[in-house]
Amino acid sequence: MTGAELWVKAFGGLPEIEEGDDLVALIGDALEAASIVPSDGDVLVVTSKIVSKAEGRRIAAADREEAITAETVRVVATRAYPGGVTRIVENRQGLVQAAAGVDSSNTPDGTVLLLPVDPDASARSLAAGLRARFRVLLGVVVSDTLGRAWRQGQIDTAIGAAGLRVLDDLRGSHDSFGHELAVTQAAVADELASAGDLVKGKASGMPVALVRGAGHLVVESLDTPARMLARTGPTDMFRLGTDEALAEGHAAGYAEGQADGYAAGFAAARAALGDLS
Amino acid sequence: MTGAELWVKAFGGLPEIEEGDDLVALIGDALEAASIVPSDGDVLVVTSKIVSKAEGRRIAAADREEAITAETVRVVATRAYPGGVTRIVENRQGLVQAAAGVDSSNTPDGTVLLLPVDPDASARSLAAGLRARFRVLLGVVVSDTLGRAWRQGQIDTAIGAAGLRVLDDLRGSHDSFGHELAVTQAAVADELASAGDLVKGKASGMPVALVRGAGHLVVESLDTPARMLARTGPTDMFRLGTDEALAEGHAAGYAEGQADGYAAGFAAARAALGDLS
Repeated sequence: MTGAELWVKAFGGLPEIEEGDDLVALIGDALEAASIVPSDGDVLVVTSKIVSKAEGRRIAAADREEAITAETVRVVATRAYPGGVTRIVENRQGLVQAAAGVDSSNTPDGTVLLLPVDPDASARSLAAGLRARFRVLLGVVVSDTLGRAWRQGQIDTAIGAAGLRVLDDLRGSHDSFGHELAVTQAAVADELASAGDLVKGKASGMPVALVRGAGHLVVESLDTPARMLARTGPTDMFRLGTDEALAEGHAAGYAEGQADGYAAGFAAARAALGDLS
Repeated sequence: MTGAELWVKAFGGLPEIEEGDDLVALIGDALEAASIVPSDGDVLVVTSKIVSKAEGRRIAAADREEAITAETVRVVATRAYPGGVTRIVENRQGLVQAAAGVDSSNTPDGTVLLLPVDPDASARSLAAGLRARFRVLLGVVVSDTLGRAWRQGQIDTAIGAAGLRVLDDLRGSHDSFGHELAVTQAAVADELASAGDLVKGKASGMPVALVRGAGHLVVESLDTPARMLARTGPTDMFRLGTDEALAEGHAAGYAEGQADGYAAGFAAARAALGDLS
């Protein structure tokens, strides 16, 4: 298979995952049951839900709003809907997403599921275990479903990664006219997560997909965190929602304007009345 | 092939595209040269660059900044870099992206390439022509490479589509616990564009990829615009960059505060001085 061909295969055969389950063993067994033999250069895209469940990240649902607050580093924007408020927040994993990634689907009534504490660590553990079991050089992406600014619908995105380049750095590459490429860094880990979602779906009982044909991205090192795809902090041009920033700017401007205006009004009155007095 | 398997194959064999070229004929010939026989349910992901070139969207580069202005509906945010200013704008295609999608790579010195005027119309024309040539029910995605809020790197995104559902609406679906799914609409056209990019790359001379295995998304109607994936307008929570919104709010707040403060200051002075006079 050449680098210009990709094969993505989702597979089921995993039981409902419980806290403490050995995901390396369960995914390995499911691969064998599906007659898929991992090869060097394969990437496994693993839905974060099953990682969360194995890591015991299910909590009582009475705490949903509290759970969102606990997972939140910073509120980016809020939007009221009939019956509640959606909070777009930056969470502990560096992701900007609705409800901090706290999920109430795919979990029993009365519970919610939090994201893995450290999805990159989860990916490293899975990659190390699966590499050892199958004696191949493979990579792992842990995926979650995220909304986007300016786009309808959600896409799957890499929230954890190990054993693959998460950014394909094209700087220094040239187009057919000899120009350096303007588009410089393809977020290939995110693209792999999206490719996996096309076959895994959401309700299909297939939480893992194997991607073959992206071997040029797979590397020996497991220290290839998806965290480096997060762009937050002062350089984030959208660190605060428009309404929130307008309100914050307005409040600050109003206070300054009021102080300046008061002084000007007072002086003007004194000048006018002083003339009269 | 089941719905849980996807095969993505990029192919080259197209000449450097010039204005007026018949893309249906050239892509069809390239498919045949690569011994790929299109089947019902296939999706072709076509890089917007070659569509732009065929549609004569190459203009003199002396006009680059002017071209960006002409393509801009609305400035969302700006960021200075050494030697210039990046403008994040909403363009005529409803996309929020840097430089309005005006590209100076993959085009000869002294020229820039604009996006297709109506990428959905381009996709419809390609899909109609290729369906007629191969007598199969296929879909077409026209892709471009976009940056994202809160994420490093770029991913390929659907800017045009015809003959496939661009959103896979999962509302009404249930998870294995019987709950309605919280994640309701997968932006599958965007995910297809990303899957295509993993094999097309940027400088590989392979501007088209065929995706097989997503036939559940392919529909008879060609009227399935990617435009409906654009989320702009008043409900866009990030319709203005944070710095821009802070500044706009500040200016409005300052003006209001100054007026209120002036009146209060004037009244206070009058009260105080009136007592004296």
